[in-house]
Amino acid sequence: MTLPARDHHDATPVLAIIGGGQLARMMAQYAVPLGLPLRLLAEAPGVSAAQVIVDSEVGDYRDLDTLRKVTDGCAVVTFDHEHVPTEHLVALTEAGVACRPGPGALVHAQDKRVMRARLDELDVPSPRHALVADPAAVEAFAERVGGFPVVLKTTRGGYDGKGVWVVGSAAEAEDAFAVAASTNVSILAEEKVDFRRELSALVARSPSGQAAAYPVVESVQVDGICKEVVAPAPDLAEDLAVEAQQIALKVAGALDVTGILAVELFETTDGRVLVNELAMRPHNTGHWSMDGAVTGQFENHLRAVLDLPLGSPDARQPWTVMVNILGGDVGRLYDGYPHVFARDPRLKVHLYGKDVKPGRKVGHVTAYGDDLDDVRERARHAAAWFQGDLGMESE
Amino acid sequence: MTLPARDHHDATPVLAIIGGGQLARMMAQYAVPLGLPLRLLAEAPGVSAAQVIVDSEVGDYRDLDTLRKVTDGCAVVTFDHEHVPTEHLVALTEAGVACRPGPGALVHAQDKRVMRARLDELDVPSPRHALVADPAAVEAFAERVGGFPVVLKTTRGGYDGKGVWVVGSAAEAEDAFAVAASTNVSILAEEKVDFRRELSALVARSPSGQAAAYPVVESVQVDGICKEVVAPAPDLAEDLAVEAQQIALKVAGALDVTGILAVELFETTDGRVLVNELAMRPHNTGHWSMDGAVTGQFENHLRAVLDLPLGSPDARQPWTVMVNILGGDVGRLYDGYPHVFARDPRLKVHLYGKDVKPGRKVGHVTAYGDDLDDVRERARHAAAWFQGDLGMESE
Repeated sequence: MTLPARDHHDATPVLAIIGGGQLARMMAQYAVPLGLPLRLLAEAPGVSAAQVIVDSEVGDYRDLDTLRKVTDGCAVVTFDHEHVPTEHLVALTEAGVACRPGPGALVHAQDKRVMRARLDELDVPSPRHALVADPAAVEAFAERVGGFPVVLKTTRGGYDGKGVWVVGSAAEAEDAFAVAASTNVSILAEEKVDFRRELSALVARSPSGQAAAYPVVESVQVDGICKEVVAPAPDLAEDLAVEAQQIALKVAGALDVTGILAVELFETTDGRVLVNELAMRPHNTGHWSMDGAVTGQFENHLRAVLDLPLGSPDARQPWTVMVNILGGDVGRLYDGYPHVFARDPRLKVHLYGKDVKPGRKVGHVTAYGDDLDDVRERARHAAAWFQGDLGMESE
Repeated sequence: MTLPARDHHDATPVLAIIGGGQLARMMAQYAVPLGLPLRLLAEAPGVSAAQVIVDSEVGDYRDLDTLRKVTDGCAVVTFDHEHVPTEHLVALTEAGVACRPGPGALVHAQDKRVMRARLDELDVPSPRHALVADPAAVEAFAERVGGFPVVLKTTRGGYDGKGVWVVGSAAEAEDAFAVAASTNVSILAEEKVDFRRELSALVARSPSGQAAAYPVVESVQVDGICKEVVAPAPDLAEDLAVEAQQIALKVAGALDVTGILAVELFETTDGRVLVNELAMRPHNTGHWSMDGAVTGQFENHLRAVLDLPLGSPDARQPWTVMVNILGGDVGRLYDGYPHVFARDPRLKVHLYGKDVKPGRKVGHVTAYGDDLDDVRERARHAAAWFQGDLGMESE
């Protein structure tokens, strides 16, 4: 049986990516086998993704004309980060460019006030919270949730621990309000949850409404930066794992998310899960899936934003551990290879082509296998070696 | 413990690749996570690898000045194909560019006469063979090996079934000699081996002498083109599998191969393995390893040519089947995705960004799992769908 002829190869849709960081770089890695042409808008020449995407230009993602130019002729545009102004996304959508995720979804990852209000409407369990206008309001909020400390967050612009304060008194809240005033954002107060650990529930969702839920993982944060992820979360009660996945699927559907949605959660000491943050893009807590799942998050993000059927998110082995490599005092990361590869022939390394700066995410390593202790030791050792500090290995 | 500071990131060695086909493209895919800068010499603008390598120029690999220019400043040069003239590789080596594999090794993949002579010296089992100058010599050779048919091959320049003839008489040999005369190459006669099937033994080898041997696979050829690979080769006797791996390791060591060496073998009906061909680059019979092994052949090729420790070549599951997608009458391959991805969420697809032409290798699909019949059916169906002809599925 011969199938009917299809259109010519040249018409393969072009996917635009806004933002040239490591997430765009890893999308590009998975666009190669899928045969997908990409066009990149990079912040500066030679940034992480610009090193590996041929059709790349430099410009400002806050400028609508630049966005129009780079997406011209592209079927779909997706994002390395959540910072493109909502009104520009609306303008692109109106001009016929499919923004995935779209502005109506993305605003929930851009604005914590909008996110919290929507999750409340959806009855999604969250920490108690309130917008606060001044230190007196923080004091009142603290009284309502059982006292200090409370968490203050800028409603927009925070990431990797920036724009977040844990304050022990109304007086300590002054810093947050100073930042908020200088950047013209509001402050959201949240109860400081008594949590056992942090979890992450990742789903891919397509415009057609198909979704794929990854196994729920444990995420270890250090100074607000994701340091280590264990997939699946060890000893997580089955009902909590299912609840976390259902929350992610519910949020993705209700907000019409397209692409990857990461829902970061607290597992409380009294056995609940509460939503901490949302991210609408491939997420650090999903990097384990590149080597550890049948379909990695970057491949599923590409498939989702192009409305192609999704790949299986199942794990390929019992345990996978991902550890981030943060910039240290080591210089050339390449020189870490002889040791880490010879010590562990099953290790997977991902370097992002970024200049090494203290505390900056410059890569990650992944180990997988049957024995969690062994897998974790291998991943931690390799990341510690790249960072030039074996002292962190036993953390 | 803090380790001593290392050199700066900027000095990461640049790897040059000569030739812009799908093998270079897949090397590029694996250079992304390793953070390796690449420089490409492409045959023409927009060829497969040029679509995904930023630092790319167009030129003729038969021109030494072009080769010198593209490798200037590169630590190492490796190859998408085996057609760079041996004398140019010698000149580059003398100028201090590490050619991997080097000219002394590569000549054995370029010239079948040299290859056969060297394998004889090494006591590596091969089909009986002789250089033949004319049809009368073919007649004499046929008498010596038990009669026609015999196989004639050009000593240089053949690939994918080109430059190979199976002849039933001396008269039928005229075509081969006409081609040989017009291209100034010689003709090698080989006995037509009575074989059960074709096998491939792949090894990665580094300049330091480390080697990694992949599981021996069964390769199904149609019209001289690799169509399907099953890893590992089903029902292969353990002693023959070990012998095939040992042959590949012996050849790689004796010829000082760096990078991937593929040894294509016949498994004879009387239970021997005989070397058919050598290839010194990532090979079609190794594509299964991208999704099916801990370390795919392209990653190990990069690690080997840069003299970094090699990754484990172990399979990640009992069975992996790779089926090539050959160009058919289908137009845009992209339109195959909705069906193949929805039918099989565990399928892996690799499209090469090449124009679809009848018979041309334009991609491959891989399926893996516990049940060989299921895995093979999934891979065959997907490839057949992309080719637009489900009639081939049951082949």
